[in-house]
Amino acid sequence: MDVLKQHQVHGGTLKYLRHDSVSTGTSMTLSVFTPAGEGPFPVLIWLSGLTCTEDNFTTKAGAYRAAAEHGVIIVAPDTSPRGEGVADDPAYDLGQGAGFYVDATQGPWAPHFRMETYVVEELIALIDAEFPTTGARSISGHSMGGHGALTLALRHPELFRSVSAFAPIASPTRCPWGEKAFTAYLGADRAEWAKHDAALLIEGGAAKGHFDDILIDQGDADGFLVEQLKPELLTAAGETAGQKVTLRMQPGYDHSYFFMASFIADHVAFHAERLKR
Amino acid sequence: MDVLKQHQVHGGTLKYLRHDSVSTGTSMTLSVFTPAGEGPFPVLIWLSGLTCTEDNFTTKAGAYRAAAEHGVIIVAPDTSPRGEGVADDPAYDLGQGAGFYVDATQGPWAPHFRMETYVVEELIALIDAEFPTTGARSISGHSMGGHGALTLALRHPELFRSVSAFAPIASPTRCPWGEKAFTAYLGADRAEWAKHDAALLIEGGAAKGHFDDILIDQGDADGFLVEQLKPELLTAAGETAGQKVTLRMQPGYDHSYFFMASFIADHVAFHAERLKR
Repeated sequence: MDVLKQHQVHGGTLKYLRHDSVSTGTSMTLSVFTPAGEGPFPVLIWLSGLTCTEDNFTTKAGAYRAAAEHGVIIVAPDTSPRGEGVADDPAYDLGQGAGFYVDATQGPWAPHFRMETYVVEELIALIDAEFPTTGARSISGHSMGGHGALTLALRHPELFRSVSAFAPIASPTRCPWGEKAFTAYLGADRAEWAKHDAALLIEGGAAKGHFDDILIDQGDADGFLVEQLKPELLTAAGETAGQKVTLRMQPGYDHSYFFMASFIADHVAFHAERLKR
Repeated sequence: MDVLKQHQVHGGTLKYLRHDSVSTGTSMTLSVFTPAGEGPFPVLIWLSGLTCTEDNFTTKAGAYRAAAEHGVIIVAPDTSPRGEGVADDPAYDLGQGAGFYVDATQGPWAPHFRMETYVVEELIALIDAEFPTTGARSISGHSMGGHGALTLALRHPELFRSVSAFAPIASPTRCPWGEKAFTAYLGADRAEWAKHDAALLIEGGAAKGHFDDILIDQGDADGFLVEQLKPELLTAAGETAGQKVTLRMQPGYDHSYFFMASFIADHVAFHAERLKR
């Protein structure tokens, strides 16, 4: 991995990195925060939302104070493959910056848009090889990245000790962002879509018994809440399937990084407790 | 003032604002964080560095957690007048984004580049008129804004309870950034420059007895340290004049917002203690 930039923050080391990905067939960028000391440390993977690169979370979430305090590595990958040879769409919610954490099966996306494989196989292995990790790992994210965190954890529970999300797209099969992206990446068969829908996965008993709780924070002044996010589908699915889901409706908060900055320490603590059990 | 954007963060309210400034003759932008509750609250003015707008500090410094905890309003103005009718220079260190917190006396800058008057007269009065303030006020800043905070506090001590800075341009009369800007804004007479040089002001006894301490944080891996910043001139001046200056050399930290994010809570606490005495 090439180190693009390096900063000290809260006593730890933050690196912006680039590597050639075999999953996406592109150069991928990410940031990794490592606390002070020798380690080993558990890992929290952070998945960002539409239009983001690794930089938004890294500069705006204010997560490293809590990560330093709890001794947790935080890894923030980019949200899609990018570059001249990579398919794209002029809309902000499809193509580069909008990978939706699935492996696309449809043209023109299939060759490079393989974000599920990238995260669960390549990225995790790369981090464990290159950083002093304990092997314990959790996942969180925001909006499209909240969808990513929930679905990757529910589909691959053996890889993760815990999962949380901020304002996730709770059920992409039932909202415009998800319907558009899944049609493009996965095709017309809604049975394929259901495999990547957090609410439907919970309802179907995915990962049952593995996660003692799933923490969701959602601002009630979030302009995307009613049409796109629908977190009540997660709690309803959890009640149906016997999966505890803690949904905290945060009064007055919107969809921005100011919302995440306000509660990120709670999420880091939630994961740290489970990563060290 | 026009509210451009508003977010809730750490229980308080963050507003991005714009108003027509009589000092600069332009539209000026700023951000204001107000803690939850009725107030009144003391105020911390934050001055940013070269190339910044009000947005850099607002999104990257992570200051509002501590501001909410201590009950302090934080005001972050833009770093210069801007717009089509305003003089500019293609270099990053002169003109728009590089106002240096002085009132320019030289053409083409004099008509609009009046950042000292803007901050100490107009901005302060505006904040006290529009927000629930106690009237107690402190000031801090980074790099060019650290120079601004120190010089405005030393030149107008009656306005401020305390002052601190991150990686300030300690003595602009003795570094390339300052020599270039002061030549452009203030002309060739170095006697005029000395009135806006924090180290020289301290050495000359400015504000003597007013500030019990001046807190400076400086990263020792800051690439601008030796040529541009020279914080040792502040401590030397303090020793000469009997002004306490606490310079904390922070090992491994650079000039970025990651450095500020690491120590901003200490500065908010430093000011909060003095604002509530």
